[in-house]
Amino acid sequence: MQTPWEYRYAHRTQKMGSSVIRELLKFTEQPDIISFAGGLPAPEVFPVKEFQEACNQVLTDHGAQALQYSTTEGYLPLREMIARHNTRYSVRVTAENIMITSGSQQALDFIGRLFINRGDYIVVESPTYLGALQAWNAYGAQYISVPSDENGMIMDKLEEALRIGPKFIYILPNFQNPSGSTLSLERRKRLVLLADQYGVPIVEDDPYGQLRYDGDHIPSVATLDSRYRNDNDGEYTGSVIYLSTFSKLLAPGLRLAWVIAPPQVIRKLVMTKQAADLHTSSFNQHVAYEVAKGGFLDEHVKVIRATYKERRDVMIEMMEEMFPTGVSWTKPLGGMFLWGVLPENVDAAEVLKVAVERKVAFVPGGSFHPNGGGKNTMRLNFSFSNPDNIREGIERLGVTLKEALKNGEKVGGG
Amino acid sequence: MQTPWEYRYAHRTQKMGSSVIRELLKFTEQPDIISFAGGLPAPEVFPVKEFQEACNQVLTDHGAQALQYSTTEGYLPLREMIARHNTRYSVRVTAENIMITSGSQQALDFIGRLFINRGDYIVVESPTYLGALQAWNAYGAQYISVPSDENGMIMDKLEEALRIGPKFIYILPNFQNPSGSTLSLERRKRLVLLADQYGVPIVEDDPYGQLRYDGDHIPSVATLDSRYRNDNDGEYTGSVIYLSTFSKLLAPGLRLAWVIAPPQVIRKLVMTKQAADLHTSSFNQHVAYEVAKGGFLDEHVKVIRATYKERRDVMIEMMEEMFPTGVSWTKPLGGMFLWGVLPENVDAAEVLKVAVERKVAFVPGGSFHPNGGGKNTMRLNFSFSNPDNIREGIERLGVTLKEALKNGEKVGGG
Repeated sequence: MQTPWEYRYAHRTQKMGSSVIRELLKFTEQPDIISFAGGLPAPEVFPVKEFQEACNQVLTDHGAQALQYSTTEGYLPLREMIARHNTRYSVRVTAENIMITSGSQQALDFIGRLFINRGDYIVVESPTYLGALQAWNAYGAQYISVPSDENGMIMDKLEEALRIGPKFIYILPNFQNPSGSTLSLERRKRLVLLADQYGVPIVEDDPYGQLRYDGDHIPSVATLDSRYRNDNDGEYTGSVIYLSTFSKLLAPGLRLAWVIAPPQVIRKLVMTKQAADLHTSSFNQHVAYEVAKGGFLDEHVKVIRATYKERRDVMIEMMEEMFPTGVSWTKPLGGMFLWGVLPENVDAAEVLKVAVERKVAFVPGGSFHPNGGGKNTMRLNFSFSNPDNIREGIERLGVTLKEALKNGEKVGGG
Repeated sequence: MQTPWEYRYAHRTQKMGSSVIRELLKFTEQPDIISFAGGLPAPEVFPVKEFQEACNQVLTDHGAQALQYSTTEGYLPLREMIARHNTRYSVRVTAENIMITSGSQQALDFIGRLFINRGDYIVVESPTYLGALQAWNAYGAQYISVPSDENGMIMDKLEEALRIGPKFIYILPNFQNPSGSTLSLERRKRLVLLADQYGVPIVEDDPYGQLRYDGDHIPSVATLDSRYRNDNDGEYTGSVIYLSTFSKLLAPGLRLAWVIAPPQVIRKLVMTKQAADLHTSSFNQHVAYEVAKGGFLDEHVKVIRATYKERRDVMIEMMEEMFPTGVSWTKPLGGMFLWGVLPENVDAAEVLKVAVERKVAFVPGGSFHPNGGGKNTMRLNFSFSNPDNIREGIERLGVTLKEALKNGEKVGGG
């Protein structure tokens, strides 16, 4: 007889669903659609030649090591390089503070596995990164949504949330996914103080930190935490778990990211990873190290910044021209996304259905709100499409929105 | 103040520890130790030149695609190639039956996440693969250990176990890790019948199936299940979830393996993987496909077989010469491991301590028994060390064992 599989699945899978974003990514496979839906880097900036040279070099010099099993924490020279870079860019750390993961999504999953008991509360921004919610739903998390504005999470509201007793605070301070907002320096300092006052750790997710197009770099929350503690020698031992990635600086297809945390947390994460997948591809770690070791990324990130800044500016210019009154949007200082707000009576998911017929796609904002709301919001990616496609896509979307707002008014006025 | 991290960790982490095997792998980093402890392939057989050519080709022809984000289920041409290969070697399947994972360890983790509620019973062989236990401990599994002999799991004992109501049966039928045993054809047929009779699915883990050095290939449990169901057209829809990997055929450093299951189970596994790490490295999937697509593996596996067969034979020959009376061992028909049994009063973990001083290492068998026992057993890997090192290592181990048995006799007789 057939196995009735649906009765074999564990309880934790009941909330599991395929993400709206992933389902939408299927649209991007149609060649004639212009997609602002995904979060893809521009393929034009992938350093293909450098990868070719690095693959050859790694296989010639370290073939046996790069193709073999390796340690769970990651390739030591790569971890040491990240430590040097991070000490320069963010908080002072050593290789003992670092574990390599297969993308930041895996780091989020491991953090969930390590910390979340069923029913635990996690403080998140509203809206927040959907991938984190997907990772933590599997562990039975509940969410406390703290409202945000263009300067990030609102700290008075955070203090109320902290009195609920959350397991940790999750925050994406630079050019947030999805809203594009950046947490101000003043709020970062207050965040560190409040987290310390209530004894609640912080998970700081920083995939886009180096992709700033305007204004000055703001120190990471981990850096401010370290300064607050006068914890400036050697290993970092503060309250922040910091995530970053090579996906936006080199290429997401490598699946290479890293966690920075106090050494005792890293040791627990290493045990978690050992049971989950033994280690991240040793070959990819060798190749990334080979590409990056001579300072290549410092130059390469300038190319990425120039490319994405132009695309952001083209998108905003076109939105000003094409979008109807009643629609507003953020002007992010960096990153890959901007955030649109429609009139309250317009459902972005309904707009999407029409938009897709007109061969343009975006992500409706509702799914970024774990506790509901945000149905009239939308996320637009500006890194993937070239300027011509951005112009054409925003024009298509403008027509769609004008229509939707006209219909919405009818509904609202009927 | 400092964060008392140990009170923040989730309940599921309390059973988490670093594996004995991993701790032992640290010994292998000492250059003068001969290690039979790990489960590493011979680096001499890695096809380095073919990888170099494949990396160049992939980056030249498909750079933008291979370095970009991709679908969670895996690169379609690779899944189609695996489907063709598997239809020839094992059960008839299509790409809809296949998901790519980052090593088989990740497949084991996802199976745990998808199926295991805290307290669920899983049927395992005794001894069984330690990595599966590590993966499933995180989900609160309990184990029913079914005794095995050199022909694998004993089916009369399995039937008793099935009446307990386990979630699934986990079995490694070919050249098992750790014991080297191979499940006989008669027992495979009985396994399929019993599993169907009690309605319990089977997880068949087959990393070494193609590494057979003696005798004829035995059909996989999935194949027999499919024949039993007359389920021979198109997609497989039976009761077996089948795992295999490129780690032993190409290189473990790529972290590439696959799960074969009914399409409805694959769809659930895809959702699980999406939340866990989005997808396995698109670059590595392209490279593996490029290396393998022209039939390279068929030739390459012959080289691996010849290399490992020689090493197995050298090890057994030396054991016959050097090991004292009272120690017995298996002669596996394939794979990478053989299994030693010491007199009952000798603790292999104690022997290891002395062995390491003599610069030779193995894995004590106790940790492969989830419900205790097996303290007088040991796992020896014969794939990694070259024949000269195997001779030298077994000589060192022989001296150690002679001493241990003499001491053991004293204790036993005192």
